[in-house]
Amino acid sequence: MNEGLDWQCPRLVDGPPGQVTLLHGEGGRGSREFLRRWIHSKFSAAATADGVDGWSDAARLDSGVASLAFTTDSFVVSPLFFPGGDIGRLAVVGTANDLAMVGARPRWLSLSLLIEEGLPIAILERVLESVRVTAAELSLTVVTGDTKVLPRGGVDQLYVNTSGIGQLLSLEHAPSGDLSPGDELLVSGPIGQHGMAVMSARESLGLSSDLQSDCGSLWPVVAALQAAQIPYKSLRDATRGGLAAVLHEWAEASGLTMAIGEREIPVTASVRGMAELLGIDPLFVANEGTMVIAVPTGWSERCLAACRTVPISRAAACIGRVTERQQAAVTVVRSLGRPLPLDEPTTAMLPRIC
Amino acid sequence: MNEGLDWQCPRLVDGPPGQVTLLHGEGGRGSREFLRRWIHSKFSAAATADGVDGWSDAARLDSGVASLAFTTDSFVVSPLFFPGGDIGRLAVVGTANDLAMVGARPRWLSLSLLIEEGLPIAILERVLESVRVTAAELSLTVVTGDTKVLPRGGVDQLYVNTSGIGQLLSLEHAPSGDLSPGDELLVSGPIGQHGMAVMSARESLGLSSDLQSDCGSLWPVVAALQAAQIPYKSLRDATRGGLAAVLHEWAEASGLTMAIGEREIPVTASVRGMAELLGIDPLFVANEGTMVIAVPTGWSERCLAACRTVPISRAAACIGRVTERQQAAVTVVRSLGRPLPLDEPTTAMLPRIC
Repeated sequence: MNEGLDWQCPRLVDGPPGQVTLLHGEGGRGSREFLRRWIHSKFSAAATADGVDGWSDAARLDSGVASLAFTTDSFVVSPLFFPGGDIGRLAVVGTANDLAMVGARPRWLSLSLLIEEGLPIAILERVLESVRVTAAELSLTVVTGDTKVLPRGGVDQLYVNTSGIGQLLSLEHAPSGDLSPGDELLVSGPIGQHGMAVMSARESLGLSSDLQSDCGSLWPVVAALQAAQIPYKSLRDATRGGLAAVLHEWAEASGLTMAIGEREIPVTASVRGMAELLGIDPLFVANEGTMVIAVPTGWSERCLAACRTVPISRAAACIGRVTERQQAAVTVVRSLGRPLPLDEPTTAMLPRIC
Repeated sequence: MNEGLDWQCPRLVDGPPGQVTLLHGEGGRGSREFLRRWIHSKFSAAATADGVDGWSDAARLDSGVASLAFTTDSFVVSPLFFPGGDIGRLAVVGTANDLAMVGARPRWLSLSLLIEEGLPIAILERVLESVRVTAAELSLTVVTGDTKVLPRGGVDQLYVNTSGIGQLLSLEHAPSGDLSPGDELLVSGPIGQHGMAVMSARESLGLSSDLQSDCGSLWPVVAALQAAQIPYKSLRDATRGGLAAVLHEWAEASGLTMAIGEREIPVTASVRGMAELLGIDPLFVANEGTMVIAVPTGWSERCLAACRTVPISRAAACIGRVTERQQAAVTVVRSLGRPLPLDEPTTAMLPRIC
């Protein structure tokens, strides 16, 4: 896999000069550099000047006494329906999770639809019903929307944008993002399920009937951590680019090394089987209901205990720790027992995974 | 034109059964029925139960002491650049205007990009720079975003979603929407410029060099009305479906008739010329910086005076009034001097106009 990555990387990263490539949207290094160069450079300074806390998946806003979080996400997953979810559920959960990751309770949602002319109403209805049911399940309210219909070929069936507003009950609940050596790293559940489920639906592989997306809300987990007064330092749902992308982002932001052990990382038997069959490392596969948590030294057991009170994170595990910067930004102890560098995701492995 | 509408209407409204048609996204009766049937039916009840004031282009939220407005819009205009604007400016202005229409000061914006693989970076950069400049011009801050890159053909170049949060400084500034016979109707400026400018760019008509989109912020106008304590009852930017669509919505919501005079409606010479050439009624053409205002009897002069203090609305005009329900929901006095029924937009006249 890593050799595959290295081989494909230069071709795709360099891409045709002056063009946007698939890689720019994949959540790995290409995305990060693209965002920094073209988006952050345009908008971060003004946001900071306006008193908004940086530019992230969700911005923190100060509206009078109440502190709010604000986020947006577009969903273009193909196919629209996959084991364990669909684009409607994904759109609600994905945006809610971005809010939860800044410590905010997801509260209000907008819903914008780009529909291809000729889409069967029955499909639209299934998706909207899924949005409705999922929003109710997550106790959040869809309050505004927009609908555009495009001529055939203008979109592929249906794309959904959800933006969300969350309430940050206390500024203490906003993760500082300030990692130090010794901090402990956890994942909230088994990794790789969403990407593998979508891939299996896309390829009609039908390999494993119990392969399901993890598509689900992480707010109950964050709420449990807040209730247990776990002083989490960073929270991140491991979507595009998977666990590897999150660890690389944190390594770069902190200038430290993220050191994890492969055997510590929960992976279901069906994900493991499909990963071996396809030669894909689950560390690089997208999740939609699994997050990485960083807590100070000595807090991982209490953090695990809090996670285990919530169904979606009952299989949470401590997977490693933050260390002083080593040669590699992220290391993983594989079967041989020695820490090996973990590449940053740099290929356009799975376009339209979310 | 009207005969054309009647002729095309049944074919397009009925469309292929069980499919979404272009008409469902055009802003006229088809859109309204589509939204009511498939969107409002799903989400309005929960929004009301959550204390949110109805479902409209922008929802009013109560977050502690501060009352907020929240809106979303996706932009799929083709071509990306047109006289007087581009998709970036349109995305900022369009979402800001939705907030202004509920009386809120536009404050924060999210930016979600759907990019087609291979899009020249130079095009993306022009659009982002336009977003940056327009946001600065409107004193609003882009605080969060999302970027997805789709394989070729997944989108046509670039679509942009902006969601926005505005501050409602006083609940008195929220229009009641409660129209009565005798209310006076105004437009804030000449109609039809956006649609005609996009059409001219699309068809490379090059008919008129002074044909420009009206793409601009209406918040300064609303702020001027608030400062002058104009007790406006309804505000609506006349986007898809044009002035005709707004008047029909108001007629349906109030059960009254909107009676306007064609000669009272400001239309620029270049829009008029192109309209005559193409056989299109400017009443049906989209605007992106022009709104309809309803004020109580006797308030139109003071409303006009307030509008004229702001450059974008210096050509505002009183165009008619609300009457008891007549046979037709909307009537227009054309050249013959008798009120004629004005059809509701029911054709897919201009897909991808915004």
